[in-house]
Amino acid sequence: MMDVKVLRLGHRPSRDARITTHVCLTARAFGASEVILSGEEDPKLMEGVEDVVRRWGGPFSVVYRRNWQGVIDSWKKDGGEVIHLTMYGLPARDVVPGIRDNGKDKLIVVGGARVPGKVYSLADYNVGVTNQPHSEVSSLAVFMHMLLDGAEFDLKFEDARIEVIPQARGKMLREIDDDGD
Amino acid sequence: MMDVKVLRLGHRPSRDARITTHVCLTARAFGASEVILSGEEDPKLMEGVEDVVRRWGGPFSVVYRRNWQGVIDSWKKDGGEVIHLTMYGLPARDVVPGIRDNGKDKLIVVGGARVPGKVYSLADYNVGVTNQPHSEVSSLAVFMHMLLDGAEFDLKFEDARIEVIPQARGKMLREIDDDGD
Repeated sequence: MMDVKVLRLGHRPSRDARITTHVCLTARAFGASEVILSGEEDPKLMEGVEDVVRRWGGPFSVVYRRNWQGVIDSWKKDGGEVIHLTMYGLPARDVVPGIRDNGKDKLIVVGGARVPGKVYSLADYNVGVTNQPHSEVSSLAVFMHMLLDGAEFDLKFEDARIEVIPQARGKMLREIDDDGD
Repeated sequence: MMDVKVLRLGHRPSRDARITTHVCLTARAFGASEVILSGEEDPKLMEGVEDVVRRWGGPFSVVYRRNWQGVIDSWKKDGGEVIHLTMYGLPARDVVPGIRDNGKDKLIVVGGARVPGKVYSLADYNVGVTNQPHSEVSSLAVFMHMLLDGAEFDLKFEDARIEVIPQARGKMLREIDDDGD
């Protein structure tokens, strides 16, 4: 089973806190094992994401690395591949099947305000979820949905304290005790 | 061809400006014809979205309606159906095929901070893009991707002034003059 991590570039706590939080929660819900934050440090954001993991289960971690290029370099050195999501890239529909089937671990890079030009050359793939402007959150979600071929609906999270019981109307939450019941 | 619009509930300019902007741009990129904003008015946000439409094409509009319940009621009265995206709902994978194939116009409702309980009963479907917490932006994108069966990659936008020429590396933009060349 391939490992998928997400590298979030250029985080700015003042402007990006909610968007980056949505990036982290989307990464988790669609089966990534980790988000690596770069840009400015943001302990409060990381605590918020860790709190979701404590309640809703994992495994999922969020870490901070100032040196994003080192993250990319060591990922590639370890045999993984790097997919940069950008509206300028090749259509996801055309490239996802090849990316999915090669079995390599994936580092998915999503940009912030200004993505350094070097990211485009370091990435193994520059991929657009359409070539229209929208959101790193939606790009990540749809790319991972396509990468997993919809298997996000089958994911099980370990050590969850709560889970949703899906309903046609209203809300139902189940609390899970320490025995897993 | 069915019409798809998005109703964004409970917008707060101070907190939600970027998330709601991403909701609007995602709606446009995935083929919705309009976003209806409710909550507090936010002319600056609407101008930003309209500027994207002027440059990247349409048709796409963003309007404000204080009375969200009136929007839902008249949509249903006109024969359309209402799909509320919520992590508490039935899995999208199970319900999207039926929603897609009935041919009715769709009003997709995405919540803000506090979704009134009434939304769950007014909606024809309460649908979860997984039953995990993540983002209204990612939920909207993946739901629309599934609803369109991936056809967002074929969408053409009218009267665009610029468009992306997809590249394996780097960025290429084409400016389009008044003759469409």
